[in-house]
Amino acid sequence: MADVKVGIIMGSQSDWPTMKEAADILDALQVPYEARIVSAHRTPDRLWEYGKSAVGRGLQVIIAGAGGAAHLPGMMASKTRVPVIGVPVQTRALSGVDSLYSIVQMPRGFPVATMAIGAAGAANAGLMAAQILALNDPGLAERLDRWRADLSASIPEEPRDD
Amino acid sequence: MADVKVGIIMGSQSDWPTMKEAADILDALQVPYEARIVSAHRTPDRLWEYGKSAVGRGLQVIIAGAGGAAHLPGMMASKTRVPVIGVPVQTRALSGVDSLYSIVQMPRGFPVATMAIGAAGAANAGLMAAQILALNDPGLAERLDRWRADLSASIPEEPRDD
Amino acid sequence: MADVKVGIIMGSQSDWPTMKEAADILDALQVPYEARIVSAHRTPDRLWEYGKSAVGRGLQVIIAGAGGAAHLPGMMASKTRVPVIGVPVQTRALSGVDSLYSIVQMPRGFPVATMAIGAAGAANAGLMAAQILALNDPGLAERLDRWRADLSASIPEEPRDD
Amino acid sequence: MADVKVGIIMGSQSDWPTMKEAADILDALQVPYEARIVSAHRTPDRLWEYGKSAVGRGLQVIIAGAGGAAHLPGMMASKTRVPVIGVPVQTRALSGVDSLYSIVQMPRGFPVATMAIGAAGAANAGLMAAQILALNDPGLAERLDRWRADLSASIPEEPRDD
Amino acid sequence: MADVKVGIIMGSQSDWPTMKEAADILDALQVPYEARIVSAHRTPDRLWEYGKSAVGRGLQVIIAGAGGAAHLPGMMASKTRVPVIGVPVQTRALSGVDSLYSIVQMPRGFPVATMAIGAAGAANAGLMAAQILALNDPGLAERLDRWRADLSASIPEEPRDD
Amino acid sequence: MADVKVGIIMGSQSDWPTMKEAADILDALQVPYEARIVSAHRTPDRLWEYGKSAVGRGLQVIIAGAGGAAHLPGMMASKTRVPVIGVPVQTRALSGVDSLYSIVQMPRGFPVATMAIGAAGAANAGLMAAQILALNDPGLAERLDRWRADLSASIPEEPRDD
Amino acid sequence: MADVKVGIIMGSQSDWPTMKEAADILDALQVPYEARIVSAHRTPDRLWEYGKSAVGRGLQVIIAGAGGAAHLPGMMASKTRVPVIGVPVQTRALSGVDSLYSIVQMPRGFPVATMAIGAAGAANAGLMAAQILALNDPGLAERLDRWRADLSASIPEEPRDD
Amino acid sequence: MADVKVGIIMGSQSDWPTMKEAADILDALQVPYEARIVSAHRTPDRLWEYGKSAVGRGLQVIIAGAGGAAHLPGMMASKTRVPVIGVPVQTRALSGVDSLYSIVQMPRGFPVATMAIGAAGAANAGLMAAQILALNDPGLAERLDRWRADLSASIPEEPRDD
Repeated sequence: MADVKVGIIMGSQSDWPTMKEAADILDALQVPYEARIVSAHRTPDRLWEYGKSAVGRGLQVIIAGAGGAAHLPGMMASKTRVPVIGVPVQTRALSGVDSLYSIVQMPRGFPVATMAIGAAGAANAGLMAAQILALNDPGLAERLDRWRADLSASIPEEPRDD
Repeated sequence: MADVKVGIIMGSQSDWPTMKEAADILDALQVPYEARIVSAHRTPDRLWEYGKSAVGRGLQVIIAGAGGAAHLPGMMASKTRVPVIGVPVQTRALSGVDSLYSIVQMPRGFPVATMAIGAAGAANAGLMAAQILALNDPGLAERLDRWRADLSASIPEEPRDD
Repeated sequence: MADVKVGIIMGSQSDWPTMKEAADILDALQVPYEARIVSAHRTPDRLWEYGKSAVGRGLQVIIAGAGGAAHLPGMMASKTRVPVIGVPVQTRALSGVDSLYSIVQMPRGFPVATMAIGAAGAANAGLMAAQILALNDPGLAERLDRWRADLSASIPEEPRDD
Repeated sequence: MADVKVGIIMGSQSDWPTMKEAADILDALQVPYEARIVSAHRTPDRLWEYGKSAVGRGLQVIIAGAGGAAHLPGMMASKTRVPVIGVPVQTRALSGVDSLYSIVQMPRGFPVATMAIGAAGAANAGLMAAQILALNDPGLAERLDRWRADLSASIPEEPRDD
Repeated sequence: MADVKVGIIMGSQSDWPTMKEAADILDALQVPYEARIVSAHRTPDRLWEYGKSAVGRGLQVIIAGAGGAAHLPGMMASKTRVPVIGVPVQTRALSGVDSLYSIVQMPRGFPVATMAIGAAGAANAGLMAAQILALNDPGLAERLDRWRADLSASIPEEPRDD
Repeated sequence: MADVKVGIIMGSQSDWPTMKEAADILDALQVPYEARIVSAHRTPDRLWEYGKSAVGRGLQVIIAGAGGAAHLPGMMASKTRVPVIGVPVQTRALSGVDSLYSIVQMPRGFPVATMAIGAAGAANAGLMAAQILALNDPGLAERLDRWRADLSASIPEEPRDD
Repeated sequence: MADVKVGIIMGSQSDWPTMKEAADILDALQVPYEARIVSAHRTPDRLWEYGKSAVGRGLQVIIAGAGGAAHLPGMMASKTRVPVIGVPVQTRALSGVDSLYSIVQMPRGFPVATMAIGAAGAANAGLMAAQILALNDPGLAERLDRWRADLSASIPEEPRDD
Repeated sequence: MADVKVGIIMGSQSDWPTMKEAADILDALQVPYEARIVSAHRTPDRLWEYGKSAVGRGLQVIIAGAGGAAHLPGMMASKTRVPVIGVPVQTRALSGVDSLYSIVQMPRGFPVATMAIGAAGAANAGLMAAQILALNDPGLAERLDRWRADLSASIPEEPRDD
């Protein structure tokens, strides 16, 4: 896949139901992506390799989802200058506040573009990736504008009782 | 300033000491920017205007800092598809947790790339803007790589007693 | 509906089960109202229009419910001097603490009269609206006094086992 | 003072530096008010009396500030249908989160219109009181519109270095 | 019931499943009690009356359970010097943290002896009441010692798989 | 001191500035007490001994202050049926929320009567001890009633500018 | 069992489903252990005895799980210099934040090696115990290295749809 | 230093005032150690190298301090089976709650033995390291026992006014 622009990575299979929301948005906007499991703790060398090769492979954005200690987005941000978007996955005991703090509170030098906790955050990660790519892709910019216009148009005037 | 690529906006003058960190990074990386006060609540029409004209003016990234209810980054994200980076400014009673939640918990459709609370977050907003611009600016990419290498090289091996 | 006094607005259809509690109270107290979906992010122009026309249309109170980043009440408060009552809708990951902080922590100049998180808060928004209108509506004041007296009278002396 | 429209009450003298912000706003908008110390716990009978007589005395709004357990606003709301605006005073250990929760989480039946923690919240309480009174006072409405316009006009375009 | 020593009061019928745990403990220890619904907001006069008459009626301990703003225990503590034990009832959005803060953060002068959130706290309120009464009731002291000894004796040495 | 009724214990010397507030109240109400340093972790045998001998020595109330993990009040409650009042001492990083949770969240069987965080909580611990003792000491009951009446009488009608 | 190296203790039977995860890891790594119920509050003397005899019995690590006030790990740490690993058990109202704070915030002198809240923390307690024992047990070190290698090898490259 | 047993590592020079407490304890107990700055984000390769060589160099314990996103302890734990003790450094906006969550909430497989936030936690990290080493070093065990006995003996019976 020579033209993959976005890498969606996650710490484990259990993050996929959340992160699939990012993939769905990218599908809808026709942005080519790959999805990989890269665990900061269980496969640190895979993380290293992915980060080191990102620029060379032409990746433009990396979307990284993780829960709990959630080191994946921040460690990836330390290995590459490709923009990293972080998605805090919701957790059982702390509801994802742990994930959020671990992802967003990065020290000076290594930003992670953090999204909302959970599925909405993952979907927005896909959109943010598209917004970044659209800066240099007029076709995508147009599809994105249409997607946003459709979203606004879909809102009814009044609430309905179910 | 025809070539301004980054807009740094903030809710009030009191946010400037924090947001200046973003400006300093952009200065160091030779990225042209403008700094504006745009209050979501006090000057909503200015916000509207800024957002509506962003694509046309050629802005590539908007960095928005705000504290407390902190609606500025999210409202800007609703008005333009230019990527918005949000900086939660530290607050007195709630230490910026209010700012963080108001900025990061955006609904599906309107992502804000949220940074850490306070000055480190503002500096990182500058870096994230540069990382995005560097995707299509080899000179900036090189300056950014050097900046990161310098940062790493500046770390001593051992702590020193003061 | 020339005599609509209260506008109930909400960010999305999913807020209606919560916000309907406000409508039910207004129904019980015979206060005419309208219910509208106005999304701060998805339909910002609708928000603008609603706020700009509120005084002219004779609206006396606006009840605004939203969850997560929850910008709707605060943005409405910036667009009109009609009193805005905010209802923090409960959210999945953060239980509505995000909604609460985003609504209540408004900066100097633009108050939002914030209610409790969730359904009790929505019902109380209806009551607060009625309390404001009752200041100049003796009939409503009487109905409200009776409603409150009935509520107190309904409390049994002793708890019962079910 | 036959024409006092707003009662500002607070739990103790130590709340006055915060609550004075509400008084200052009312002074600026020429709204007559009284300021009283009414402690829910230390002078509960005074609270009772104040609440019972509020309608008869012609009070239109009660602004109540309290910190910690902060029962004053809610207890006042149970004694009168005059709208009560609550101001959570910042506290030492819990920064006013205790005050906020105690004030905002009122049960169905007895709303308190809660403002932000601390001085900004107190100022906004004054504004909310004025917004309510302005519904039936065109002169005040005009002064309020001007106050809001002045606030917006006071925002400079660009931040300045100090 | 001339010899009622403990009053169990609660804000509403919905608190009874929690507060019944206190009653069960008092039953087991043969401590006579009464259970009443006394709402701080819906029946403030009942609260007043209950508090004013507590010493005269010979009440030795008042156990008060409430959720959310949870003003009942603190307001009762302001009306009588009979020791008040507070039980924070678990709530939906804030899990009882709101109840806990509202009950425990009482100002100087009016202590509420606060227990754990929920059912364990209610049971412990019954035990604390018994511990206070046992100071002057050797028979109860003996029953309490036996209850505690039985509790300790009931703990097996090793966990068992179910 | 044969007639000591109240034991004030604390985890370390650094808790004394807080716990002295309890002693001051007991002094004012002429309740004899002793103050001891008993560390749950550093002097667990002292804790054991103190708890085991409490009933025999005629202690009627134990006030225990501690910060952080704050095991002292709960461990004392496990060693004696004398009522234990817990005071969460404010801490540096977590402001005493750690102390509060460790003290109040006791399991079924071993209640600790928890007070507010910090100095106000310590003062209230002294008052709660007096309220318990007053159940069987008419002279103390009278002094306590007077103390409470004086407190209420000391509240001015209006706030004063300083 | 002369060669028991690890003691797994817990406050009650209800902690066993969580703590069994530690036992399962130790089984997998062939580390001999014992599991005991030792309640800090209900069986304090058992705790005392266990702690006092730990060094003499040759215990090398104690894993202690508890929820809520969660005094067990810290009290054990005060009774023995054998390393204590603490597992915060998830709780109903506070999700284990109470357990975590009570276990981790130990004062200078008595460390508890705290793990994550809940089952993952219990499993990690077993691993940490093995890591400590492996320092002087080459066979165990090898089994541990293999366990870690197997864990890493088990991670697939790509997420799969279920 | 062939006999270095403990490595103290930290993310930046600014962590040293906190981490020096660990070094002081190790000095007092005559445990040889080294102190190094190893930043997870700024010098990830140094982290890799340190972790990979830890077993071979004979390190028995690694103490890792970090603040904010605080990835250092967890990443080190993924690179070596040498026990890692984590110290959450106090931070400005979030007081170290961010550091705590990032360090303690590690996923199954990679435990970090987490200490209290700040200086007390760092001192305890030194003690925990000594407790682990003492398992196979009778001289150190004796010094540690004496240190603990001295700590207990230093506690006065009564608090003193200053």
